[in-house]
This record gives sequence, structure tokens and C-alpha cells, in this order.
Amino acid sequence: MIRFENDYAEGAHPRILKRMMETNEEQTPGYGMDEYCERARIHIKKACHAEHADVHFLVGGTQTNTTIIASILRPHQGAVSATTGHIAVHETGAIEATGHKVLTLPSDDGKIYAEQVKELFDAHWNDVTHEHMVQPGLVYISHPTENGTTYTKSELEALRKVCRECGLPLVMDGARLGYGLVGKENDLSLADIAKLCDVFYIGGTKIGALFGEAVVIINDGLKKDFRYFIKQRGGLLAKGRLLGIQFETLFEDGLYEEISSHAVEMAMSIREAFLEKGFSLRYDSKTNQQFPILPNDVLGKLGEKYSFSFWEKFDDSHSVVRFCTSWATKKENVEMLVADIRDLA
Amino acid sequence: MIRFENDYAEGAHPRILKRMMETNEEQTPGYGMDEYCERARIHIKKACHAEHADVHFLVGGTQTNTTIIASILRPHQGAVSATTGHIAVHETGAIEATGHKVLTLPSDDGKIYAEQVKELFDAHWNDVTHEHMVQPGLVYISHPTENGTTYTKSELEALRKVCRECGLPLVMDGARLGYGLVGKENDLSLADIAKLCDVFYIGGTKIGALFGEAVVIINDGLKKDFRYFIKQRGGLLAKGRLLGIQFETLFEDGLYEEISSHAVEMAMSIREAFLEKGFSLRYDSKTNQQFPILPNDVLGKLGEKYSFSFWEKFDDSHSVVRFCTSWATKKENVEMLVADIRDLA
Amino acid sequence: MIRFENDYAEGAHPRILKRMMETNEEQTPGYGMDEYCERARIHIKKACHAEHADVHFLVGGTQTNTTIIASILRPHQGAVSATTGHIAVHETGAIEATGHKVLTLPSDDGKIYAEQVKELFDAHWNDVTHEHMVQPGLVYISHPTENGTTYTKSELEALRKVCRECGLPLVMDGARLGYGLVGKENDLSLADIAKLCDVFYIGGTKIGALFGEAVVIINDGLKKDFRYFIKQRGGLLAKGRLLGIQFETLFEDGLYEEISSHAVEMAMSIREAFLEKGFSLRYDSKTNQQFPILPNDVLGKLGEKYSFSFWEKFDDSHSVVRFCTSWATKKENVEMLVADIRDLA
Amino acid sequence: MIRFENDYAEGAHPRILKRMMETNEEQTPGYGMDEYCERARIHIKKACHAEHADVHFLVGGTQTNTTIIASILRPHQGAVSATTGHIAVHETGAIEATGHKVLTLPSDDGKIYAEQVKELFDAHWNDVTHEHMVQPGLVYISHPTENGTTYTKSELEALRKVCRECGLPLVMDGARLGYGLVGKENDLSLADIAKLCDVFYIGGTKIGALFGEAVVIINDGLKKDFRYFIKQRGGLLAKGRLLGIQFETLFEDGLYEEISSHAVEMAMSIREAFLEKGFSLRYDSKTNQQFPILPNDVLGKLGEKYSFSFWEKFDDSHSVVRFCTSWATKKENVEMLVADIRDLA
Repeated sequence: MIRFENDYAEGAHPRILKRMMETNEEQTPGYGMDEYCERARIHIKKACHAEHADVHFLVGGTQTNTTIIASILRPHQGAVSATTGHIAVHETGAIEATGHKVLTLPSDDGKIYAEQVKELFDAHWNDVTHEHMVQPGLVYISHPTENGTTYTKSELEALRKVCRECGLPLVMDGARLGYGLVGKENDLSLADIAKLCDVFYIGGTKIGALFGEAVVIINDGLKKDFRYFIKQRGGLLAKGRLLGIQFETLFEDGLYEEISSHAVEMAMSIREAFLEKGFSLRYDSKTNQQFPILPNDVLGKLGEKYSFSFWEKFDDSHSVVRFCTSWATKKENVEMLVADIRDLA
Repeated sequence: MIRFENDYAEGAHPRILKRMMETNEEQTPGYGMDEYCERARIHIKKACHAEHADVHFLVGGTQTNTTIIASILRPHQGAVSATTGHIAVHETGAIEATGHKVLTLPSDDGKIYAEQVKELFDAHWNDVTHEHMVQPGLVYISHPTENGTTYTKSELEALRKVCRECGLPLVMDGARLGYGLVGKENDLSLADIAKLCDVFYIGGTKIGALFGEAVVIINDGLKKDFRYFIKQRGGLLAKGRLLGIQFETLFEDGLYEEISSHAVEMAMSIREAFLEKGFSLRYDSKTNQQFPILPNDVLGKLGEKYSFSFWEKFDDSHSVVRFCTSWATKKENVEMLVADIRDLA
Repeated sequence: MIRFENDYAEGAHPRILKRMMETNEEQTPGYGMDEYCERARIHIKKACHAEHADVHFLVGGTQTNTTIIASILRPHQGAVSATTGHIAVHETGAIEATGHKVLTLPSDDGKIYAEQVKELFDAHWNDVTHEHMVQPGLVYISHPTENGTTYTKSELEALRKVCRECGLPLVMDGARLGYGLVGKENDLSLADIAKLCDVFYIGGTKIGALFGEAVVIINDGLKKDFRYFIKQRGGLLAKGRLLGIQFETLFEDGLYEEISSHAVEMAMSIREAFLEKGFSLRYDSKTNQQFPILPNDVLGKLGEKYSFSFWEKFDDSHSVVRFCTSWATKKENVEMLVADIRDLA
Repeated sequence: MIRFENDYAEGAHPRILKRMMETNEEQTPGYGMDEYCERARIHIKKACHAEHADVHFLVGGTQTNTTIIASILRPHQGAVSATTGHIAVHETGAIEATGHKVLTLPSDDGKIYAEQVKELFDAHWNDVTHEHMVQPGLVYISHPTENGTTYTKSELEALRKVCRECGLPLVMDGARLGYGLVGKENDLSLADIAKLCDVFYIGGTKIGALFGEAVVIINDGLKKDFRYFIKQRGGLLAKGRLLGIQFETLFEDGLYEEISSHAVEMAMSIREAFLEKGFSLRYDSKTNQQFPILPNDVLGKLGEKYSFSFWEKFDDSHSVVRFCTSWATKKENVEMLVADIRDLA
């Protein structure tokens, strides 16, 4: 069985493991105060053109979202998100467990837009009984989204503008950030994101690392005491250097971008194969996740050799499924899949 | 500088890293549903003589304590702990952040006793306005404690008896569990602990692993939906097999006990050296942490070559400090330290 | 200005105030342990044909909903509610502030149905990654709803049946319960509600009392320690007898039903007047709230003499507004309003 | 039985009830937006010499403490309190239920001092691992304390000074505030308190009202969005005018002070009687609560005619008990008690 069902099926990029082996016996201070973390921070700030940012390392995505959001909101405020946002659906209510409502905006493809945020904000403040309702307190987006879609620079600038007008910090979930930065049509750089977001994170778990998410806090007003929040939410790794080593490896000489590009290239091959064969795509994803709409008998056929995940029922005879590539996807496996798609009856 | 300041200064036992390398390219399901985790669970249950236990893997100690406690208590209940308990002092209020008070019992050496629990329980229920106070909901102990002390079998049996009478689950924080099971005077086995506790965990972070704590739920009434809690608290590692691989390695052929013994042996050498030199120990620890009371000038002298941590002021001219050994402590370093202690003026 | 804008504009029924005056100098124990509360409990249990129920008195609705829901759910569970439910919209995230998500079901008129609950329940448990999502933990309905609609006996029985199959407690918000029990077409009695719900409350604030909601817990499994929850949520009134006196007065000889009937009778006159004049109603309410769809110029005209509340925009030239009657609504005011509606151009 | 067991045994001052009767049929807006509340706010600000304060009305003390504290702290911060503080002991963990630890300072008589606060603050920030511990976020005191003791002006000024140096808001629980302002030795006025505290509240429940606490927010930085907090915590009374009417009555012409003085005068008679008879007092209270240390046989004797509350065991033959007076205490009852104390064998 060749697995395309998710982007965390393998371990880490070999260079990361090698570095872990080499440094294994070194003695370092704990909790992210070591020199590997320090160097990784410098590399990341450089890559973001954001010398004054604070960079923190956490272990996983749910933990990271929860920690960031809990650090920003006051108790009567909520996080504005697409209905499909990870925090709205797939974190077992972690945000609510910190006391905050997720205020959802309708979305078909995972993206939300400046006008929607403005409308929700105005609707809240124009209601005479607004104190009976949760106050919007920040805007949460994912890039790429859960659906593989990405924001354009102008869309992100518009969101930023509205957020600033409304006094709402803009927070970006970048669990798959690398895959959103390397597509052919993408016009957003890490530096743009650092300029336009108040806080964002750079996902490692799905892009080359064993685990790890690098939080970048741009807005000075949101930096205070962030380490307390990491600790309180259980995210302060004792052997913090493991995170430093991984992000140093990913960012010291462009590995992060390089392996992201590979994954997206692989995904584009799969995308083209499906389109050429006449299948539609549920979302117009230019990233590592592809969502073809397939006849149910094709599912069975492909499923004999490849694993992929069921996304949703499309109609009585079709389903949407998800194929993921990753930094670790083997070219020969993709070529085999592409050939098998072409050979479908 | 030779570091004795904590027991998480190095990486992982070489056999663990080797196994990670060997399996790095395998594709496995995420979130702990892989076969490494499954085998690790079987090894641990066998080591605990607890076939019917549920075993879950989390990343770190604060996360584990919070998840366990949140899964057990109702909102009006609190966790009974020594005033010095990790949850009471060093988790940035993680327990309170889940809504629960830590109900503290005085303790000089980190241990609490059956009679104290009974007294607190009775005081609560005998108060006519008990619903104005937090109800005791579980008893939390550490073994070894933060102070290196350990429970005897009869002490733990007495706690268990009282807990059962009071309807209070007994929860053991085993962040350093291995170091508490291998001392010469220790009369508690893993099987005893599994028999006497409702939930406990076996620490990996401080004993050979890169990270990881294995939660063992013995009490059937506390098993339900535990994976939801792990996810909600941010502890469900995407590449869960990393935890499985580590605990499989530690438990498949006795490595956990073997490396724990090494650490304690090293600590006993240091202990003896201090005692022989005429220094007192703040706590009577037979585990990997040693707390000598040293004249302040000795601190300076030893501090030139070794790092250790300040614990507390003893009097104007003496301090309590902590020396930690671990699975990774090198024998030659301990011998050098012992020699240097002997040579103190 | 004659006010029809809400049902809490006046004080209390005169018999309640009189009783408060008469008993003002008596000394009673606090926190609901007095004999007024005790007698009120007996009257309410009798009215509900529920001798074994537990009855508790709280001050207001948001507090009551929060307390009930917090007492039932475990941390990873959520409350299923209509999107329009009071807990979902108008309690400033009080439920989320206790850590729980509100899981919403679409609803046009405030009601939710058995099939919807079943579908949500099945969707959760059929998802292989269900532990990544909030687990449905109880079903919350309002009777009457925020929209003035009510459940029929068969609808409530169907909900009950599904809830029981799914192991979900059924909780009824009865902030306006009286107004839902006295309509001509209503086929639900207090005894039916007590038979079909696990927990419900009988609203006093909007029906004759200065304040106060009487929680009735039918399900034995949900009774334990409820007073702790009241205290923790700030709802344990020091001079608890004030609640006892009010509910005793309302329930000792049928006053609650009598004044509820008056309010609904008044509302029916207003309803008929709008219908006769050819206006439509947004919701088919047979209770004390009426939601006519009015041309915007009519709003202006009626607004000169009467206050009512804006509900929502209907189209460019029409709005939905709300007229409320209550136990205190004066017949002559309603007659004047009815005449003025008839006289509209 | 003549009751001295608490200060909330009766209803309200007759003038309050009279005013409620007179205004009962008026129609007013809800949730504290009525003119009674508005006038009450003006009276209170005048009494506090604090024109720029925000004044809000809540129902009870636990609710008020929780709401104030939740509005101030960030999630990683705790409230510094005496170990005996109401929030630390008698609110069923309401503060913890909002996610915050209560950081306790030892206290024999309910008071805490500037030096203690400074020491705790310094200990936190001097610890290199301070982010592993709850950060002090505000200082909570009661005046009078649970033990009937009061702060002097210079003590409060010292606390204020330290709080300002440490950036910690100073919050005063004034559930019995009136009783602390009228003693012969008291040198603190309402205006002083308004000058020295960031937030405080003026208790009505125990001083003349049926219920109600008036929160006075002096510090501009703490005013924002407070009504959201009231609503979220279940404290926004629908018929808010009931609070306005009560506080208007208490503050429009000095009734609050007048009835507070009566209670303290009555308490002083009881105090003198115990002292003259040779009994000691557990705390040196000049307020409405008195804590004599009595031989157990005396308890039995007095208990035949008077109710009072058991406070704590003093030794095998003595107990500390509490006698409370209030605005409603009848002079003839106190005279009878005094006579009976004199006649004790």
C-alpha cells in the first residue's frame, strides 16, 4: 500500500535525524534556552525579514493554535474563523476549553474575506445589546487552508487592512505554510506574511520535521509573557533543543523551501493526471493536498494500491477524496499513480 | 562544564535514536494508532501485570498531569496534592487553567500521607457549608517526589485504602518513575503501583527518551474518552509512532530499568561522597536527585567545574543545591566529582 | 410610551411584593435552606407530578443555563442547540467560558427536531477521527423558543426518545415556560415536561417574579452536588428565601398559570389584529411574543405611541418586529394598540 | 431563637421595600440601563469623590469577585489573597473556574501587608524559571476582612504603593464595607478607598438591601467592556432597576452609613459585655462581627436562646464563635444578650 492519506506518515528529513544523532550526547539547558533554538530563531527571523519578531517553538498544531489564541483574547472575546477552520472543527473544542467561542464565517473553500470580517464586526457593534454576545477578538486564517487553497497577496492585504481598522489581530495557522509558499501562482513570501500578520506559525510537523511549529510574533503588543502561556498549555518541551535543531536544519540553507517545492511538484502531477482524465476537483488547490471528485468505482480500483482519505460524499455515485503529498513523497510512487490514473477505464 | 543540573540535558538513549533512524521512511497511521504504539502498550501492560489497563502516550509532564486530572474531576472538585507538588507549583497554573483548584497538604519532603488525606476529606464533609468550598476529587502524588523521596509499599497501601474509602482516585506522577523503582531499599514494583493507583504515568523524558510519558489507566471508570482529552489538551502527537518506538525500545527487554539503575548508582556515589565529607542532605533521597546542604564557599568551588541547581537558602552561610544524575550520566564524570568532593578543604 | 418591547419591564406581581413585605423582618437561614424555599419546592414538585425531583432556585437565565450545562458535561463534550438558541447567541459565551462548545443545528423558528439530533450524533460517532471533534453531550431546547414557537407533545416525545437512545440528557430552558403551557393548541403539561426532560427550569423573571428561575432535576444521575455548581457559578443567593417566597406565591394556588394565561390572551388579541389587517407573522407564535412583518412606515407610525423591538430586516421596505406581552400587560393598553392597528392606513 | 449567626437573616430596610412597592408598575429598560441605576451611580460616585469612576451593580459577592477578577487577569496570572480570603476558601473555586490560581499569603487575622506582597512579587520575578509559575496579577483584600478586622489608612496606603510599584491592581472586596467605615478608630473614608484602590465594591446584601453589590472601577485601564463580563458571568439582572432602586435609597441621603453605624454600635455592646466578663476575643474586630473565645459550657447556655456560628476549636474546652449584628439587629435583643452574658456563672 502506497500512502497518500496524509502528510505526516513518515519520520523526518534525513538531515534532521543526522543532526540529532550528532548532537545527542551534548548537554544543553532545557526549555528552549539552548543555542540551537537561538540559532534557529535567527534563521527564521532572517527568512521573514523580521528582526524584531519573537520566535517560539512548540510541538504540535492544536497546542500552538490554542496557546496563541489564549494569549491574545480577553475572556469575552472570540476567534473569527471559517466554519471549516481547524480550530472550529478538529481540535476537540480546545479553544472553547480555554473559554473562548469560535465565531464562524461561512466558507466553501476554507478562505474568508475582508468584507466578511467587516460585516461580522459591524453587526456586533451595531447591535444595541452587543454585550450579550461574544465580541470578535481576533481573526484566524489558515494558509494554506484545510482545503488546500491559498490567499493571494491582495486578499491578505485586504484582510490586514480590515483587521487593523477593527483592532483585530490577524493570526495565521501555517501548519502547512511551506506548501503555500512555493506554488507557481503564489505571490506571497514569508516576508509578506510577516508584514501582514500579527502572529503566525511555520509548520514543521508536516514539512520535514519529526514535530514542531515555529510561532512568529510580529506585533509587539502580543509578545509579553508568551513563555508562560506555552508552559501553562503544556507546550514547553523539556529538551527544547530538539525543536531548535530541527528548525535550524530546515532554515539554515533553504531546506524548508526546497522540500516544500518537491511536495507541491508531486501534487501538481497528480492534479494534472486527474484533470486530464476528465475528473473535477472539489477545491482549486495548488498545494500538496488534492481533492478530486471520483466515481465510487474508481475509488475501489485506486484503493487497491494506494491509500487516500475520504473527504465527503459528492452525490450518490461520486465522492470527494484527498490525496496528500509531502516532502517525503517518492517520485516513483507518484509516477506509478499517475500512470494508473491514466489507465482508468 | 560538566552538568548535573537536571535530568534532561542530553538527547535519547542511542538504541532509541537508532530505531528512529531505521524506521524513518516507513509510512504509518498517525495519532498513536500505529503498530509501534500497539507493541509498546503490550510491553508496558506486561511490565505492570495489568492486562486490562489502557495505555496512552503523551509528550511531556505538565501536559500529562493536566490531561489526566481534567479527565477525572468534575468542575467543583480539586486535586489534593503536597504543597510542593509539581502541579501546585511548577506548571504555571495549568490545573487551574482547566478550572480546578489544587488543594494542598503540608509536606516537608514532598510526600503526603493517608492520615492527611483522611483529615482533609473529613474536614470538608463535616463542614455544614461544604458546598461553599472546593470538594476533594482526587489525590495526586509523585513517586519519586520533587525532593527525591519515595513511598514505601505500606505507605502507598495506606493511601490507597483511604482513597478508596473516600472515593478519591489515586493518581501518581511518575515523571521519574524508573528512578524510584530501582533503589536498594525500594519495595515497590511497577505491578504494585498498577495495583494501588487508579492512574499513573511512566516518565520517558527524564529516563532515556527524547520525550514522552506513558499514561496507564487502571480504573475502568476513568478510561472513557481519554483520547478526546489528549487531543483537546494538545497532546495527541501527529507522528505518534515516535512515542511508540521510544517506549517499545525502553520496555521490550528491560532497558528502562537498566538505565534507571545506572542513574541511581551514580547518584548514590555522589551521596556517599557528600556524607563522608560530613555534609548533610536536605532530603533523604535514594533516587537520582541529591540535595546536599553546602557551605556557600563550597558552592563556588564546585561551581567552577560542575553545574548544579540552587534549591533554597539554608542559612546565612549554607545553601541547599541539587545534583541530578540520569541514564546518560558518565561514570568518569561522577568519579571526578566524587574525587573533587573528597578534596574539598 | 406604552412598552411592548420585552417581558421584564415591570416589577413583580403585587401578591409577591406583599408577601415580601409581610415577611421582611423574619430571620431565616440563608442560601435556600429556609422554609419558604422548602414549601416552594413542594408546590413545584406537586405541579410537576415529580415527587422525587430536586428543585433549586437561581436568580437569572444565563446563570441557570450555565450552571445546569456545566454540571452535566465532561470537558470534551458540547451542548447541542438550535443556532438561534439563547446559549448559542445571547449569553456572551457563558457556555464557552465553562469550557464547552455549543454544537448548533440549523433552525428557522427556534425549534430542533429528533432527526436532526440523531443525524448529528451519528455523524460524530461515524467519523473515524471523532476524538478530534467535540462530542455531543446534551441537548438544549427552549420552550417556548426565542421565536415564540413551542414543541408539541409528540415532538418532545420524539426528542426524548432519540436523546435516550443516544445517552444525551435533554435540558429545557423554560425562561418563558408558563407562556408555553397555556395556549389553546398546547398539549404539553408541566407533568409531561417533567416526564420527558432530564432537567428543565421554570422561569420566574418573565412571569410574575422580581427575578428567579426554578431548576427541576428529574434524572437522578444529574442531581449530585448541584449546590456546589450554583455556588461556584455565583448563583447561590444569600437571602435565598426571596426566591422561596416568590415561587411559593406563584405555585401555591395556580397564580403562575393564571398570569401566564393573561399574557397569552393579550398576545392573541395583538396577533389577530395584525392578521386581520393583512400583515404576516414571521413565526407562528401562540405565546406572549408576536413577530409581525410590517412595512417600515407602519413602524414609524406605531412607534410614536408604543415601544417594541426590532427583530430583523425582512426586505427593503419591511421589518420584523417583536411585541411582547406579560403578566403585567394592561388590557386597556392592548385594546388601544389593537384599535390603532385597525386604524392603520 | 434570636439570631446573631449571620448578617443576612432578614429582608431589606423598610425604605427600600417601600420604594420597590411604589415603583412596581413602572416600565423601565432592562439590564441596568434605567434611570434608577443612573441616579444610584451618581450618588455613589459623589460619596466616593470619584466623578470619573464607572459603577456597575451585581447581585452577590461571589459573582462580583469572580467578575472583577476575571476582567483583570490574563490567563497565566493569579490573584494574591490572604489564605483566609473569601475567594481562597468560600467560593467553591469560582476563581479557579475562571482559570486563575489564588496565590495565598499567610494571615492570622485576615489582613495582608505591603511587605508580604512585595516579597511574593520579588520571589516570583527573581526565580529564573518564573514562567513555570503563576504570575501575580492583582492583589485582593477584604475590608473588613472575614475576621472583622480592618485596614488603617496607612496600611492601605502602603499596600497601594507596593501595588503600584509592582504593576498590580489593588482590588477590595467590600461585602461588608459599610461596617468597616463607621467604627470609632476607623480613619478610612469611602473617598480614601476610591483613591487607593483600582476597583472595589460596596456591599448591599449585608447592609440594608435584599441583595446587590456596587462595583466601583477607578482605574481607567480596567473599565473596558466590563458589562460583557457581567453578562458572561450571569450577573446582569434583567430587572436591573431593582439594584438601582436599592442603591439609590441607600446612598441618596446617608442611609448606608446610618444603618452601618447602628450595626457596629450593637456589636460594640456585645464586645464590651464579653470583655467585661473576662472572655478573650479571637480577633480584634471593631466591626459587626465579634469572635469571642468561650468555654464550651457557655456555648450551650447561650445557645438555648441565641443562635451564633461556630468558628473554630480553640482548645479542648474552648471554642471560637461568631456573633454578627446587622442594620436589622434590634436593640432590645442586644440588651437581652448583654444581660445574659453578664449573668453567666
